Amino acid sequence: MQDWQLHPTLARDGLVLGDLPLSRVLLSRDANYPWLVLVPRRPGATEIIDLDEAEQAQLTREIAQASRALMTAVPCDKLNVAAIGNMVPQLHLHVVARRRDDAAWPKPVWGAVPARVYDAGEMERLALALRAAIGLR
Amino acid sequence: MQDWQLHPTLARDGLVLGDLPLSRVLLSRDANYPWLVLVPRRPGATEIIDLDEAEQAQLTREIAQASRALMTAVPCDKLNVAAIGNMVPQLHLHVVARRRDDAAWPKPVWGAVPARVYDAGEMERLALALRAAIGLR
Repeated sequence: MQDWQLHPTLARDGLVLGDLPLSRVLLSRDANYPWLVLVPRRPGATEIIDLDEAEQAQLTREIAQASRALMTAVPCDKLNVAAIGNMVPQLHLHVVARRRDDAAWPKPVWGAVPARVYDAGEMERLALALRAAIGLR
Repeated sequence: MQDWQLHPTLARDGLVLGDLPLSRVLLSRDANYPWLVLVPRRPGATEIIDLDEAEQAQLTREIAQASRALMTAVPCDKLNVAAIGNMVPQLHLHVVARRRDDAAWPKPVWGAVPARVYDAGEMERLALALRAAIGLR
């Protein structure tokens, strides 16, 4: 069995917060929106249905965990949850906290506006808060 | 308890294929992509985490069922699965069959290009094939 490795594009665009039982959890470096990415550590998976039934159920629980963490840690009017993967084939789930006054509202975030860089310290503080809310050490 | 009713915007934009144990299944009227929409029949739900744990697990199974049906019934290079709901608050899941030569590829479908109307008979044939593939009567 091949080893699982985080896709280089996901590694570049996100900060690793830690591992849940199935997924590596990343915080997107785009400061426009608090944005988590869950990456199931299953070699070769590109679709949710590439996971077996137990893994799909676990992914669902991890999406819920990420969702609740965002709603606890940041101001949030709506969650957007998506598996798209048209550009990066490795299966990954977006969980994005949206606000009615964010840069792209009401449009989906993908390709809507250029990514914004976090101010010094801002991303570290958010990462700390989200790690605590998710229960990652 | 309030009765559940399909949101008028979802009713306008989709053809009802039938009901799974949790969700009403619709086929989008946008002919650019074979596109299913699952709408959990739970009054007031706007987020996946508004469903209880058993319902979330059932939704996951129904997403997998819709995904496999699309891959069986239509040519498909990639699935896009998403709960967005920034415009229509009623919880609904998009399951979209994407092709590398479709109108929006590799962009997500939402707002990418104007919706296209199905030719006479084309939507009925697709609805029939998808209803069979999903196992709806």
